[in-house]
Parts: sequence; C-alpha cells; structure tokens
Amino acid sequence: MKTLNRFIISDWFRTLQDNICTSLEKCDGKGIFEEEIWQRPGGGGGRTRVIQNANIIEKGGVNFSEVHGILPDKISSALNVHGHDFFASGVSIVMHPFSPFVPIIHMNVRYFELSSGEKWFGGGIDLTPICVDPKQAKEFHITLKTVCDKHNPHYYAEFKKWADEYFFIKHRNETRGIGGIFFDRLGETENISLSDRFHFVQDVGNLFAPFYTHIMQTNKDIAYGKKEKQYQLLRRGRYVEFNLVYDKGTKFGLDTDGRTESILMSMPPEASWKYNHKPQKNSKEAESLAFLKQGIDWVNM
Amino acid sequence: MKTLNRFIISDWFRTLQDNICTSLEKCDGKGIFEEEIWQRPGGGGGRTRVIQNANIIEKGGVNFSEVHGILPDKISSALNVHGHDFFASGVSIVMHPFSPFVPIIHMNVRYFELSSGEKWFGGGIDLTPICVDPKQAKEFHITLKTVCDKHNPHYYAEFKKWADEYFFIKHRNETRGIGGIFFDRLGETENISLSDRFHFVQDVGNLFAPFYTHIMQTNKDIAYGKKEKQYQLLRRGRYVEFNLVYDKGTKFGLDTDGRTESILMSMPPEASWKYNHKPQKNSKEAESLAFLKQGIDWVNM
Repeated sequence: MKTLNRFIISDWFRTLQDNICTSLEKCDGKGIFEEEIWQRPGGGGGRTRVIQNANIIEKGGVNFSEVHGILPDKISSALNVHGHDFFASGVSIVMHPFSPFVPIIHMNVRYFELSSGEKWFGGGIDLTPICVDPKQAKEFHITLKTVCDKHNPHYYAEFKKWADEYFFIKHRNETRGIGGIFFDRLGETENISLSDRFHFVQDVGNLFAPFYTHIMQTNKDIAYGKKEKQYQLLRRGRYVEFNLVYDKGTKFGLDTDGRTESILMSMPPEASWKYNHKPQKNSKEAESLAFLKQGIDWVNM
Repeated sequence: MKTLNRFIISDWFRTLQDNICTSLEKCDGKGIFEEEIWQRPGGGGGRTRVIQNANIIEKGGVNFSEVHGILPDKISSALNVHGHDFFASGVSIVMHPFSPFVPIIHMNVRYFELSSGEKWFGGGIDLTPICVDPKQAKEFHITLKTVCDKHNPHYYAEFKKWADEYFFIKHRNETRGIGGIFFDRLGETENISLSDRFHFVQDVGNLFAPFYTHIMQTNKDIAYGKKEKQYQLLRRGRYVEFNLVYDKGTKFGLDTDGRTESILMSMPPEASWKYNHKPQKNSKEAESLAFLKQGIDWVNM
C-alpha cells in the first residue's frame, strides 16, 4: 500500500469535486457546471465549476484548488506557523437554490502542508435554511453526528460548537443558519495518524451529495409566494455580510490575491437589504429567526 | 464672537442633516425620511434618518451622530493616537436611487477630538454612476475643485488622489465610481486654524444638496431598460463588496459595536452577483467600466 501523501489527498479532492458535480447535475435535472481552469502565478491553480440558472439551483460553485509556493507573511503570522513553503488543496462548495425552501449549503474540506513538516486537515459544512424546518435541521445534525461518531466520540460535540462560533454574524447577533460542523488542524494534538484523519475528511466530503440531493428532492416542490422570496433575499444579504466581513477563507483568498471570481462564487445571485427590518410576530419568518442562535441541541430536539 | 468648540461644530452637523433631508425630500417629491433616535451605551448617540421606496430614491440614509467615551484600544492603536477619551461627531450619507442613470452618492463629514488635546476634521464625497456620463463626472469634479480652491490650492489635487486610492476595490482592480475627494486629519501639519478647517468642511457639506438634487432632477427621467437595471444590480454588488471589505467607517462601526442598522444603512436595497460577468465589447457597460480607474483627470477631460 502506498504511503499517504499530498498527491493522493489532492487527487481524492479532485475526484470528490467530480462526483459532487455529477450528483448535483443529476438531481437538478437541467443545470450543467461550467468549468474554468486557472493558474496561480505563485504556484498551482484550480478548477472552478459554476452552475447558474439551473432548475433547482440558481447559482452555485464547486471549486477544487491545489496551490503551493511561498507562504505570504500575512498568513504565516495569522496562522502562527513557521514553514516557508506551503501546499494547500481542497474543495469548496456553496449552493444558492431558487426556492426559499431549499436551504443554502456550504462545505469546505482542505489539506495544508508546510515545509516545516506540519500537515493538517480542516473543513466544515453548514446549512442555511431560509424557512427553518426543525425536523430537517435535526436530520442534518444527526447525519453529521453519525459520521463524526464513527471516528471519535468527541468530534461531533466539539465541531458542532466550533461551527456555532464560526458561522456567527456578530453585528447581527445571529448565526448564519442552523450550523453544522467546523474543524481545523484536525487531530493534531491527539496523535491520530494522517490516514485516519484523512478518512474522517473523506467521510465528511462523501456525505455532502447524498444529503443535499435528498434535501433538494424533498423540498423543491414546496409552494412559496412573494413573502418567502423577499425574506430569502434578506437572508441572502446576511450571507453576504458573513462572507465579506467574517469568513476566513474569503479573507485569506482576497489577502493572498487569489482568483476573485472563484472566491466570490459564494455570493448569492441576488440579495436585498431593508432598513431595520423586523419580522412580524408569530410569522414563519419570526419562527425561523428564533432558530438562528448558538447552542441549539439539534440532535436531541 | 464665541470660540469654536465641539458643541458649535456638532450643532452645525445636526443642522446640515436637517437641511440635506429637507432638500432631498423636496427634490424627490414623495419620500419622507423616517427618523430613529438612538443612544450609545458608552456615551452619546445619533439621529438616523432613512428614506425608502420614495420617488427617485429607492433607499438612502442621512445619519447624524455625536458619540463620546473611552476610546477602544483597537481604535487607538489603529489611529495611532494616545488620548483616552474621545468625542466624534459627523454626518454620513448614502443614496441609492431607483434609476441606473441617477448615480449613487456618498458623503461623510466628521470631527474628532481626543482628551490629549488633538482635534481634527475628516470627510469625503464620492459619486458612483452606474452608466457613467463623463460630462457629469467632470461637472462633479469641477464643483469639488471650486470648493477646494477657495481654501487651499493644493486641496483638490491631494484629496482627489486620496479618494482614488480610498474608494478602490482592490480585488476587482476597479474604483467604486468616478471618485471625488477624501481627507482626514485635515490641515493639521499646516497649522491652519480650527475655524478655517471647519469652514472648509462646511463648504463641502453645503455642496452636497445643491449638487445632488441637480443631478437627480437632470437624470431622473432618462429612460432605461432591463439591461441597465441588471447592470445596476451588479454594480451595487460591487458597492457592497467595497463597504464590507474595505470601508473604514463600516469597520470602525462594527468593531466598536456601533448601531448595526445605522452603519449598514449604506447597503443597497437590492444587489446581484453573476459569476465571471464580462461586459460585451463596445456596450454602454464596457464604456462605463473603462472609467472606473484611478488617476483620471476629470477636471481637464
């Protein structure tokens, strides 16, 4: 058996991108991903795949990148690492469906290596329903917990908490959605083998397509009106606020002169802002908003 | 004659807000500003005035604030100042019109005082036309130069350059609009009296209403179609990117736990993002885009 190395990991991410795109296209039934191959002047490049104006998906991207080179000072001090050269590979996904009943989803799985010898995985997946269905939120968290539990009994609780903290819009005092899991520098202190860590990341990556296509199928035909659509646009505005103000991947990308169009593929097709918008009491909107907070125990809901 | 002090300055800003709101309402013909008085837990407060779904203006705000208290560490190190207590007063404006032919406008004039004795003015005004009319851009810059020249022959060149650098969306390699003027810590090194500096700020503040209502009147009836509206939404997306990624006022506000709704009143009512959008050759859009760069000598255009 070959020793696990960056090439094997990166190849696996590339295949994950292929598989996810195939599943999403099949489920959507109309949209085709357009591919753009790009090169990074400092080393490496990527394969950006974008779907727009499909059947269920209004705008989304499944990006693979494998970049390497000299680590910018800004990043090494932010990461508190000391390697001079870096290698990073991963897959990033954001999907914005037309229907306010099909949640926005985001996933990122990544591998990082430094010339100092440090190697780690990171990642996360979170769901942003516009109209929160507590049953589906619970289902999402159970799916995540099942995958986590397979690897480590502490993972789910730890990574769920991390997601609650990470996907938080501080200036709104709201979470972005119903959370999920988030992890970085996975298992480094516990001395878990690189290949065990990789297996966990693979399991996370592999849950994306079956889970999300199931949600797409289940929710795509739920009828909605102007009200729900307007609320969706406002929530997408919050999504924009999170990504541009807080998201570390976006900041990292823009700071390192990454490919802007690939980084900002996460932006929604349309968004809106209304001054001092407050949902009406007892409305579906108010009900959904009440779920956008940290610390909800979805699994035992 | 009374010695100029923070109360006189702050009162003048309050009156400026009144006058600008009155002029804009009169010109719009339909919209009425809604007022919200808010208090800052750490000291001071503000008067937020917002107009939505008016006749010409789709969404806009004219905000006055007068805040004081202990300067947060984050700010004192960012400003490289050492006063412990601060006082800040000013007016901030952003207007998003319905028509892509009526430019977005922004103005900010502000006064800052520290317990160490340091006092300064800052401000800026910039215009963001969607469909750039070079004649009007020139007119705007001549208006600014005229006001600047009245006070100092170097102001316009210096502050115009500053605006080009400030209102720049680095990751897009585009300016936000056709620039304007930007200044901070006005005239400190030149030993200009506080009252002379205040007169300059007053002249800048006073040019807003006559200039913008003139543009509103001139452009409001220009016919436009779906194409121009779509382009407007994309350019508003860029406006969002600038405000959330680069704008120091927004960062300052969110970092100091300012009132989120007042800070983000600058967000457009609607915005859109399209992956890798490129304007068609020789289109009006391509023509406008060519004007979104630094260093254009508008006055001598």
